[in-house]
Amino acid sequence: MEAGEGVSGTTPTEEMNGAGNLMDFLDEPFPDVGTYEDFHTIDWLREKSRDTDRHRKITSKSKESFWELIKSLLDAWSGWVVMLLIGLLSGTLAGVIDLAVDWMTDLKEGVCLTAFYYSHEQCCWTSNETTFEDRDKCPQWQKWAELMTGHSEGGGAYLLNYFLYVLWALLFSFLAVSLVRVFAPYACGSGIPEIKTILSGFIIRGYLGKWTLLIKTVTLVLAVSSGLSLGKEGPLVHVACCCGNLFCSLFSKYSKNEGKRREVLSAAAAAGVSVAFGAPIGGVLFSLEEVSYYFPLKTLWRSFFAALVAAFTLRAINPFGNSRLVLFYVEYHTPWYMAELVPFILLGVFGGLWGTLFIRANIAWCRRRKTTQLGKYPVLEVIAVTGITALLAFPNPYTRRSTSELISELFNDCGALESSQLCDYINNPNMSRPVDDIPDRPAGPGVYTALWQLALALVFKIVITIFTFGMKIPSGLFIPSMAVGAIAGRIVGIAVEQMAYHHHDWIIFKNWCRPGADCVTPGLYAMVGAAACLGGVTRMTVSLVVIMFELTGGLEYIVPLMAAAVTSKWVADAFGKEGIYESHIQLNGYPYLDVRDEFTHRTLATDVMRPRRNDPPLAVLTQDSTTVEDVETLIKDTDYNGFPVVVSRESERLIGFVQRRDLTLAIKNARQKQDGVVSSSVVYFTEDGPQTPLSNPQPLKLRRVLNLSPFTVTDHTPMETVVDIFRKLGLRQCLVTRSGRLLGIITKKDVLRHMAQMMNQDPESIMFN
Amino acid sequence: MEAGEGVSGTTPTEEMNGAGNLMDFLDEPFPDVGTYEDFHTIDWLREKSRDTDRHRKITSKSKESFWELIKSLLDAWSGWVVMLLIGLLSGTLAGVIDLAVDWMTDLKEGVCLTAFYYSHEQCCWTSNETTFEDRDKCPQWQKWAELMTGHSEGGGAYLLNYFLYVLWALLFSFLAVSLVRVFAPYACGSGIPEIKTILSGFIIRGYLGKWTLLIKTVTLVLAVSSGLSLGKEGPLVHVACCCGNLFCSLFSKYSKNEGKRREVLSAAAAAGVSVAFGAPIGGVLFSLEEVSYYFPLKTLWRSFFAALVAAFTLRAINPFGNSRLVLFYVEYHTPWYMAELVPFILLGVFGGLWGTLFIRANIAWCRRRKTTQLGKYPVLEVIAVTGITALLAFPNPYTRRSTSELISELFNDCGALESSQLCDYINNPNMSRPVDDIPDRPAGPGVYTALWQLALALVFKIVITIFTFGMKIPSGLFIPSMAVGAIAGRIVGIAVEQMAYHHHDWIIFKNWCRPGADCVTPGLYAMVGAAACLGGVTRMTVSLVVIMFELTGGLEYIVPLMAAAVTSKWVADAFGKEGIYESHIQLNGYPYLDVRDEFTHRTLATDVMRPRRNDPPLAVLTQDSTTVEDVETLIKDTDYNGFPVVVSRESERLIGFVQRRDLTLAIKNARQKQDGVVSSSVVYFTEDGPQTPLSNPQPLKLRRVLNLSPFTVTDHTPMETVVDIFRKLGLRQCLVTRSGRLLGIITKKDVLRHMAQMMNQDPESIMFN
Repeated sequence: MEAGEGVSGTTPTEEMNGAGNLMDFLDEPFPDVGTYEDFHTIDWLREKSRDTDRHRKITSKSKESFWELIKSLLDAWSGWVVMLLIGLLSGTLAGVIDLAVDWMTDLKEGVCLTAFYYSHEQCCWTSNETTFEDRDKCPQWQKWAELMTGHSEGGGAYLLNYFLYVLWALLFSFLAVSLVRVFAPYACGSGIPEIKTILSGFIIRGYLGKWTLLIKTVTLVLAVSSGLSLGKEGPLVHVACCCGNLFCSLFSKYSKNEGKRREVLSAAAAAGVSVAFGAPIGGVLFSLEEVSYYFPLKTLWRSFFAALVAAFTLRAINPFGNSRLVLFYVEYHTPWYMAELVPFILLGVFGGLWGTLFIRANIAWCRRRKTTQLGKYPVLEVIAVTGITALLAFPNPYTRRSTSELISELFNDCGALESSQLCDYINNPNMSRPVDDIPDRPAGPGVYTALWQLALALVFKIVITIFTFGMKIPSGLFIPSMAVGAIAGRIVGIAVEQMAYHHHDWIIFKNWCRPGADCVTPGLYAMVGAAACLGGVTRMTVSLVVIMFELTGGLEYIVPLMAAAVTSKWVADAFGKEGIYESHIQLNGYPYLDVRDEFTHRTLATDVMRPRRNDPPLAVLTQDSTTVEDVETLIKDTDYNGFPVVVSRESERLIGFVQRRDLTLAIKNARQKQDGVVSSSVVYFTEDGPQTPLSNPQPLKLRRVLNLSPFTVTDHTPMETVVDIFRKLGLRQCLVTRSGRLLGIITKKDVLRHMAQMMNQDPESIMFN
Repeated sequence: MEAGEGVSGTTPTEEMNGAGNLMDFLDEPFPDVGTYEDFHTIDWLREKSRDTDRHRKITSKSKESFWELIKSLLDAWSGWVVMLLIGLLSGTLAGVIDLAVDWMTDLKEGVCLTAFYYSHEQCCWTSNETTFEDRDKCPQWQKWAELMTGHSEGGGAYLLNYFLYVLWALLFSFLAVSLVRVFAPYACGSGIPEIKTILSGFIIRGYLGKWTLLIKTVTLVLAVSSGLSLGKEGPLVHVACCCGNLFCSLFSKYSKNEGKRREVLSAAAAAGVSVAFGAPIGGVLFSLEEVSYYFPLKTLWRSFFAALVAAFTLRAINPFGNSRLVLFYVEYHTPWYMAELVPFILLGVFGGLWGTLFIRANIAWCRRRKTTQLGKYPVLEVIAVTGITALLAFPNPYTRRSTSELISELFNDCGALESSQLCDYINNPNMSRPVDDIPDRPAGPGVYTALWQLALALVFKIVITIFTFGMKIPSGLFIPSMAVGAIAGRIVGIAVEQMAYHHHDWIIFKNWCRPGADCVTPGLYAMVGAAACLGGVTRMTVSLVVIMFELTGGLEYIVPLMAAAVTSKWVADAFGKEGIYESHIQLNGYPYLDVRDEFTHRTLATDVMRPRRNDPPLAVLTQDSTTVEDVETLIKDTDYNGFPVVVSRESERLIGFVQRRDLTLAIKNARQKQDGVVSSSVVYFTEDGPQTPLSNPQPLKLRRVLNLSPFTVTDHTPMETVVDIFRKLGLRQCLVTRSGRLLGIITKKDVLRHMAQMMNQDPESIMFN
């Protein structure tokens, strides 16, 4: 008790020295102090306080000389510079990816004779023999069969084209999976679950590295071009985050502080979505709602900037040749009617059900891949799935083309100039045709054929996407989900339209659909269906509606979109709270503390803390009676990330907490540089060291690596409060005391395990902390 | 020390009883336990844990019977119901206010003979004698002079109209200020500073009450109609929050929990901005960026819903007869050019300077009002300012009309059909005139007159707004700020346009402005100027740009708006970090802990905690040696909000914290109901009570009002961490310990005072906590 009294009896002057010691510590006496190991959790509070110290140092220095002032200004501006660079690079990459995908997708069917690097559209666009009626056909663009055999029609040509289509697809996907396997295993998947985990404060080294960036960009093009049922949206977020990480390394402000780095990554994620959907505001909200963990207002503003720069860079590249950021930007001309909310809500229900089905099936399949032999042959798996996809996709025109084009066509309103099969309506010859206001018409044979093909495409997409997402190639989920929804929506839309046309007198149509009026827009149904399915899978809400709002560009259609998104979320939530990303996080056992999970169980800190009742006592250090050897033994025997320091083993009164890593480094450093530090040296965490001067052997003073303000809660604290504190302050661990006496420790891993236990999940699946 | 050992020696079973005691406490044994007094700060953690308990109770009950299940479902849905109601009511109120303002503003100039309740536009709209050329004139609408004397022209008529204009203005503003004075003093001002404070966890009873709602709605109409330089946007947020508060009282979930109530209020603020600007997404971001303190994702989604419902309700009312939500919705037809960024950035600089000037001058004037005789005559002040405003405003056509109409005209592009003086350009008779694509033309005499009048209007608006904002009537700042910016912007825009027309050959115009092209849109300059000035005053960024984006409805003009908003914020921030709302919060001394202030000073918890070095020791209770009389004396002698409970005065080991209010209520309750509790009874906070049973007098057990998990930090904790904890967890107070020994206490007020001290402000101005 004596020593304890000694500590608490210090005067304010000495306490100032305490602050001084803190300074010494923050001057980083040994390299690597304050960094983290791979697959460990960061301490947000500590990162924040390190940044404040850095900032303080720069501010005080800036008054010294003009050069330091310039440096401090540069430091203050570095955040904006990083954002600008992220925006420029991710916009450029998105543009390049779009152009490359466009070309390579068309390469599966044919080649441009004037210049092999032209896509079908570019080829016929530059040709002057193209007529408006046959925009798709020009002599410069030749299908493979035509080029090789000279015949463009007939069974032989069809089979040759079919064969080459499958061959190209297999080649692309083989290249993609091989590159991923050999150069950057982290480049596979969508990346969003991992980015969520990283942003919540986990370290995965190399996940956002240069190699991942390069390989993911290249393989994304290959994977999308191969015609697999996957999209580029999720991987684009990963690519943008890699850009963010790359530019972080230019500025020590960001490269040396894991907390600040995550602010940049949050903004990069916004830029990624911004270019993926051409929706900068939606991107920022996506980052806020779905991906980010710590999102201060400053990041909001910077994210917005990065998202805008990215969007404008992409627009400058203009990959689709239409001054739009995405292929499926739409404009509708007729309003919607109240009665249409019924089909919209039904689409929402469909979206929710599809989301549930997809998540369950996909997780089951991924678990099987993880646990069985299947996981050992990723290349074979990709080849097999690509083969099946290509074989089944070619005969159906709606699956043969790229999924974005399909969505674009489904979203489109049938204008007067539309030549698509879906717009094959029977026109009334007596009626003048204004360009934009075309009344509802009876469907022609083309529409009926299209309906059948769409129904087949729907079944195909639903089944194949389950097996595709999670393979060892870059694969996004947004586009396939949207495609499923858009197909279902368009089918429902055409059905409603034809019903309204043929049954004007039905009571449900009577009030709003006069004959000769344009009442139903099937394209809008497709869009609503796409929103519903995307919502069911990802459980996005605000950001989803805002992205769709930015695609349509009008407030008009927000209500249908919202009705569908809300219904879809509610239906899907009824079957399980987790979206696809959370499910994959759980499957992989990442230590992710979801901000949205409400912890409502009535447990206390004492139920969660370690040591449990029959465990050995907590591994602690004493402030002035442990030897270097004791410490080294403790470090060797345990794998804890840190140790509480107490006054004495008897009183168990807590004075601080020391990180394992810092302790190891400090002892190593002292052994090398400080004379007289041997195994039997006593380690002192007190301010003054031993009372007897020049004791033998030389003592080792380690107060400067001691955190004097460890976070504590009492054993009576309800776990809901503890969970809240862990979430909001981003703690790594928290000590449990009662009346100042140390009882135990709660780490983030303990919290996660406890939460999983309470929700009857397998607590052992959580990754080491 | 014995007793302390006793406490820490309890077994886990006893600890479960501790949880039981917590339950008892949360069953609310006496009325009013857990409520707060007026002008006090709430404890967010406690509110949250109370809500979790309530939720737990409902969930466990819901399994008991079908009726309870229904009740639990209703409870789960109540949040959405409240949002729906808020949206409907605030949309309706906004519509009614718009219509009433429209009518009463016109009433100052004349009256409609067919129906006195028609506004000028409605009057001539229903008339069939109106020609397109003279849309403004119809026989049914008569100016006062014409109606009274029969002459519509001449000096006499002008003077009579002038006189009546001033008279009506004085009448309206007199009514407004009187109503505010007599019925609802809280209805004055914009309300946003107070709402920010309330949302941060402060209690101001009656600020969001029914009377405030009613009086603010009525007086807002009067104040805006009187022609004063004020807007309805800020007060609309206040009105929406009053609606939110009103509907909270329908559900005990919200009415009994100050934390949950604030979630609803955040959403209501979003609905308020949504109807004020017709920008639902902007409203949500405004609430997130500017107003709210605690904004979980659930609130984001609900805010969006409330904002959308409000917007659609307003659209259904259609107050402007144009299917738009605001008067100043615009569509431009020409793009902007890179070179124009220079004037846009200059407008940003102007906006920043105006913001700084306005804030400094307005705060100085408001401080003068607070400290001198001026504050004692609010009615006279309003009358005087209205008189001056009306006298100066009438002769200038740009100040005579309502400010929203002025902004609308300034934003507008000069189309072919525009009859405004600002569009009096000299047309080339040889040129065919397409409707939307009009080339730059030389300005006619009307434009030059307009320029002079606008310049005068600018000076007038700048000066008068400083004196208007802060008077005892509802007054928003958005519209006057936007007007100042729009006038400046339009002037700059016309100047650039004429320069470009007359000097095609200048190097800066050569590349983008061929003769006969439409290169400069002066309306866009007006909009950019408006954004810059609004940004300078409020320091909004993302929400400002998004609101403007929703007004123009295209991504096209986001870059100019952003350039101006960023410049304006940087310029204004260089002169002082605080926006107008923060300045008013500081002026009024509200205990508001800004999320955006970075605390970077190197102080420790020990420097801030009380007691200070020479103060008397902390007022504490002991767990088993204080009598009822001691407690009552302590309560009487001090005004602390709560007291720490320690094991004994010697050991000072902390076991919990008890709220003053709970203590008072518990003792009062015990004295009334429990026999044998007298002044000399010992108060026990331990679990078991006295060791000697049936001691005399009867002991009083108060463990159930004891918070066993008070928040503690060590004395070495850096203040930046403490500030962070206070912000993120929303604490009222925090105890300071060292090795389990209680050293002092830090309250929110201490934190605020310390921050003010560190920034060299007057720490004494902070309101009692």
